[in-house]
Amino acid sequence: MTAPDLTLYTDSSPNGFKITIALEELELPYTLRHVHIEQGEHRQPEFLKLNPHGRIPVLVDHATGITLFESAAILLYLAEKTAQLLPAEPSERWSAITWLMFHTSSMGPLLGQRVHFELFDQPASPTAIARLRQLTESTFATLDQHLSSQPWLAGAHYSIADIATFGWMHIARIINFDFSRYRHLSAWYERIALRPAVQRGVALPHPATGA
Amino acid sequence: MTAPDLTLYTDSSPNGFKITIALEELELPYTLRHVHIEQGEHRQPEFLKLNPHGRIPVLVDHATGITLFESAAILLYLAEKTAQLLPAEPSERWSAITWLMFHTSSMGPLLGQRVHFELFDQPASPTAIARLRQLTESTFATLDQHLSSQPWLAGAHYSIADIATFGWMHIARIINFDFSRYRHLSAWYERIALRPAVQRGVALPHPATGA
Repeated sequence: MTAPDLTLYTDSSPNGFKITIALEELELPYTLRHVHIEQGEHRQPEFLKLNPHGRIPVLVDHATGITLFESAAILLYLAEKTAQLLPAEPSERWSAITWLMFHTSSMGPLLGQRVHFELFDQPASPTAIARLRQLTESTFATLDQHLSSQPWLAGAHYSIADIATFGWMHIARIINFDFSRYRHLSAWYERIALRPAVQRGVALPHPATGA
Repeated sequence: MTAPDLTLYTDSSPNGFKITIALEELELPYTLRHVHIEQGEHRQPEFLKLNPHGRIPVLVDHATGITLFESAAILLYLAEKTAQLLPAEPSERWSAITWLMFHTSSMGPLLGQRVHFELFDQPASPTAIARLRQLTESTFATLDQHLSSQPWLAGAHYSIADIATFGWMHIARIINFDFSRYRHLSAWYERIALRPAVQRGVALPHPATGA
């Protein structure tokens, strides 16, 4: 038995789940290294050598010597490495990348800030909460409209854009950011949640609690 | 004279400048369509057909029939189309993509929120301002450390990662988010600001005022 080429450093989080889901979908062997953020392991010098900003996930590919951080970069790398989860047809391929970037620049960071301001900020800032609610709801509305005419974000094929977006919607569901009135987005969520690879991915290194 | 294959819809903004800079660096002919955000043109049905979320920049490539939004997606598209501004060597290529994603997911969105909370929020939320200052300064510190040992974000070659990051640092400079104490980041900024293509790019469709 040789060790797998891929090592994933992760914790149970929306950005981490994107990569465990992708690796499970691709059925790639990998070594999972649990970075215990609550114990500050992401601030240890050994981890900061992998990502100087101290965030999970990090992927090391021992076959190529490449170390990557940022979940969207890792998803693009895995798609290119395997020629899977990113459509080959140019129009659909760039649609997948566009919606992956929409998630990466807008929906993900906005949900992250909303979680902070709505659940953890002391003293609470009503204008900040209202702003982040409005901005995240606006991304839900855009996704809902987009999914009204096609099953997946890129078009006919499930892709890394769906996986990235699901990573954060999974947390939104757990912490009761209700998106049930976005009918198409909700149906898309349920389709993805049924996938066996997704069910395995969101339990690694352990299921999220929303805490 | 035939019209150029590329049409860029943009306004004077950090995300828009990323694309005007890239197009000027690549010396690609393009038609510039000024979307007057202050006049609400990004909310018009014609523009929403191009980007349902109503944001600039949008690039249409009439040669391929592909329409893209999200500045990072457009930068990746232009790099792939021209085989420029993204290193070919795999390790440096993925470093460029990683730092492009760091900008896209962290630094850009955080600076965007900081601009809002620090300059426009009414009533001001001191905890929100403090949080966004701390988070943006943290990204400056990470970039500064990274640039202490290499001239460009990907390594030896100027890339779309530098262009994307510069887009927002240009606005940070204009509105006096002081980053002068980050010596390596400041020197990197000055090197980029001297490039003729950058000087053309940040004046299209007109220079930013910070307002």
